[in-house]
Amino acid sequence: MTESIKYLLDESRIPKSWYNIMADLPAPPPPVLHPGTLKPVGPDDLAPLFPMSLIAQEVTTEREVEIPEPVRDIYRQWRPSPLYRARRLEQVLQTPAKIYYKYEGVSPSGSHKPNTAVAQAFYNREAGIRRISTETGAGQWGSSLAFAGALFGIEVQVFMVRVSYDQKPYRRALMETYGARCTPSPSDETQSGRAILAKRPDHPGSLGIAISEAVEVAASRDDTKYALGSVLNHVLLHQTVIGLEAMAQMEMAGDAPDIVIGCTGGGSNFAGIAFPYIGAALRGGKKARFIAVEPAACPSLTRGKYAYDFGDTAHLTPLAKMHTLGSTFTPPGFHAGGLRYHGMAPLVSHLKELGLIDAVAYHQKPCFEAGVTFARAEGIVPAPESNHAVRAAVDEALRCKEEGKSRVILFNLSGHGHFDMQAYTDYFAGKLVDQSYDEAELAMALAGLPSVKAA
Amino acid sequence: MTESIKYLLDESRIPKSWYNIMADLPAPPPPVLHPGTLKPVGPDDLAPLFPMSLIAQEVTTEREVEIPEPVRDIYRQWRPSPLYRARRLEQVLQTPAKIYYKYEGVSPSGSHKPNTAVAQAFYNREAGIRRISTETGAGQWGSSLAFAGALFGIEVQVFMVRVSYDQKPYRRALMETYGARCTPSPSDETQSGRAILAKRPDHPGSLGIAISEAVEVAASRDDTKYALGSVLNHVLLHQTVIGLEAMAQMEMAGDAPDIVIGCTGGGSNFAGIAFPYIGAALRGGKKARFIAVEPAACPSLTRGKYAYDFGDTAHLTPLAKMHTLGSTFTPPGFHAGGLRYHGMAPLVSHLKELGLIDAVAYHQKPCFEAGVTFARAEGIVPAPESNHAVRAAVDEALRCKEEGKSRVILFNLSGHGHFDMQAYTDYFAGKLVDQSYDEAELAMALAGLPSVKAA
Repeated sequence: MTESIKYLLDESRIPKSWYNIMADLPAPPPPVLHPGTLKPVGPDDLAPLFPMSLIAQEVTTEREVEIPEPVRDIYRQWRPSPLYRARRLEQVLQTPAKIYYKYEGVSPSGSHKPNTAVAQAFYNREAGIRRISTETGAGQWGSSLAFAGALFGIEVQVFMVRVSYDQKPYRRALMETYGARCTPSPSDETQSGRAILAKRPDHPGSLGIAISEAVEVAASRDDTKYALGSVLNHVLLHQTVIGLEAMAQMEMAGDAPDIVIGCTGGGSNFAGIAFPYIGAALRGGKKARFIAVEPAACPSLTRGKYAYDFGDTAHLTPLAKMHTLGSTFTPPGFHAGGLRYHGMAPLVSHLKELGLIDAVAYHQKPCFEAGVTFARAEGIVPAPESNHAVRAAVDEALRCKEEGKSRVILFNLSGHGHFDMQAYTDYFAGKLVDQSYDEAELAMALAGLPSVKAA
Repeated sequence: MTESIKYLLDESRIPKSWYNIMADLPAPPPPVLHPGTLKPVGPDDLAPLFPMSLIAQEVTTEREVEIPEPVRDIYRQWRPSPLYRARRLEQVLQTPAKIYYKYEGVSPSGSHKPNTAVAQAFYNREAGIRRISTETGAGQWGSSLAFAGALFGIEVQVFMVRVSYDQKPYRRALMETYGARCTPSPSDETQSGRAILAKRPDHPGSLGIAISEAVEVAASRDDTKYALGSVLNHVLLHQTVIGLEAMAQMEMAGDAPDIVIGCTGGGSNFAGIAFPYIGAALRGGKKARFIAVEPAACPSLTRGKYAYDFGDTAHLTPLAKMHTLGSTFTPPGFHAGGLRYHGMAPLVSHLKELGLIDAVAYHQKPCFEAGVTFARAEGIVPAPESNHAVRAAVDEALRCKEEGKSRVILFNLSGHGHFDMQAYTDYFAGKLVDQSYDEAELAMALAGLPSVKAA
């Protein structure tokens, strides 16, 4: 029997620095703007929300940002994460391609999110912060910050999109087990929440609304800062441990990827696996194709507009230039809740504009089909979000078969699906529907983008 | 901040042999008897159920049983599993004790069960078997055999205790994702099942009934063998990889345990961590206390009778001498479904009779309390079964504090609780009840033990 192969690094090889792609970009990304003045935001504008150390990471152009020793100490609980050569999957697909995957599901909360949650909790704690508010969609981010908060003695309040709060009680239970408080959003705890509820008491919520609530709480309470699980530069920075480790592991395997794949919601796990490779290519190293895989029902990179937009629904955040579907866009319900966001990380969007990365979109059923094939071959049940990366990797492997070419494919398996088994149950019962978004709603959301003449 | 420490072995140190405690016992365990003749069973009696290679492992007295290379290849996916020093937990408890735990939740199905599932699937496949029937309570064993079956191309049918089938749809979804067929038990697919349903159509099922159904299918179909997830000697044998790795890791840590703890349902995860240490002590090595921790609502070791009994309800299995509550005993519902079995592994029972191990019993609420403390300190949410081991470890650590003594405590964290979050939800909602079994029912079940004059 063919066996899949694990490449495991020694603990001493957990990266000592995160990799910052800002240092290698051929052109800097457009600045983030203050929504009132339309001038670039400064540290003081962000100070109510984040500790200064994270604000500094948001704008630094240093190539290497040192990982504090206490953060590395916690990373050690599950890092370096394994990299596998999926030989059983290759065999099932009868492909000449070599398929590798980096597996981030080994973390305590089962996804890549703790890579940044631990770092953010550390910097907040260093700054004396004892309370953090945040939002979560499917719950991967909320449970990861809850975990990190427990370790650093920080109280965590999570605004969870109401539809997920109702549909995914187990993610909520996980947050509560770690000691966090989980509030369904929209809630009556904030102005933004009350305004939405006044119009529609049964509003299912959205990530944009939950962000408004969490930001409002942080901005209005001296003892509370805010944390975001994706999109921002410092979050993407923290995730580069994934790609840095993968580079060392691929070297052990004696291969270098021709194709690097990650799923994209806000963009952080894709950035984590891809940025170190993109940076190496920009510095003259091996070129590769970089594929961001998004849900067809929320396709910011493939159908959105590259424009300045708010990160939230109530327009409390600064304006960032990104691929966006408009901050009022509400994607249809699908199971990869972690990918239901109207915008894309500004850095990922910038790379797309520079032609350095590709993007593809898939509906959920073909993604679950690929996920089940993967689970039976490799033994790991992927999260619905990660199934998007699996689908793209499988399709690239099948293309290799058609073309009779052997390419090296590397993808990021960002998390396991243990908390998402209802989605698999629905898939097997034939209950999954490939809903499209409403074209008219998208047009309206795009028409409503803020008008920004500057920049 | 104090950090917990991980001890990780290199892949090359996955044990090459399992450890067989039969070689070191001061007295052999009583033989397993044929229920008709009351004579010791021979290989031919067991041949309808198991391949000869596993029957040989059931009775061998060789100290070391070689692990086949293809099994080690699959173990590599998640083994060697990590061993942690729980320094954050020690700090929370303010104990002078050193607490170590071996973590088996890193396996694809999230528990120690794949250690034997992979081995059993391998030997069945070697014998040309393409179909295996089995039973499962909470679903940890069923999903592990489903995983192993997928890897070896073996069709798996799982009879799942109906109350768990209804309460734990996500474990069932996991089995189906791996390609297994999951049938609620009692079912109308077997004589044993139909007989039960005739008396009580809404029977909630029990592990004893599900075993009867799975055994009946295997015995009546030429193409099908049976697999058991605990209790039998060969199953306990396969689990000794846990303790063998732990010994090497404790050596890395420079400590040797004074106390070794595992939870017990059928006995396999306790055996896995404890047997290699018990064997070493029997051969003149360091003595330690070995504590088997069982649920107070199903207390075979602490309240059962050491007697010959059937492994199943329909009395299709041979008779084994073990601590038993009687094969008709139905424990009350509690969340650690993997510990709801009327009997105890004959080898574990034998060690208890020899005075080599201790047993304690806990109700579920104090176990969940300890589990939540553990999760907040160490970041890992334990399975309800494993919470029993956590509780005992915490109590021993607190005893050290009272006595002002530093002891080295090692326990097996047999699995994570990702599929059991409803139990945590109930715990937080104050809905958990510490039900006791019915004393009259226990008395009746014990009175109904088969009368065995021989032996």
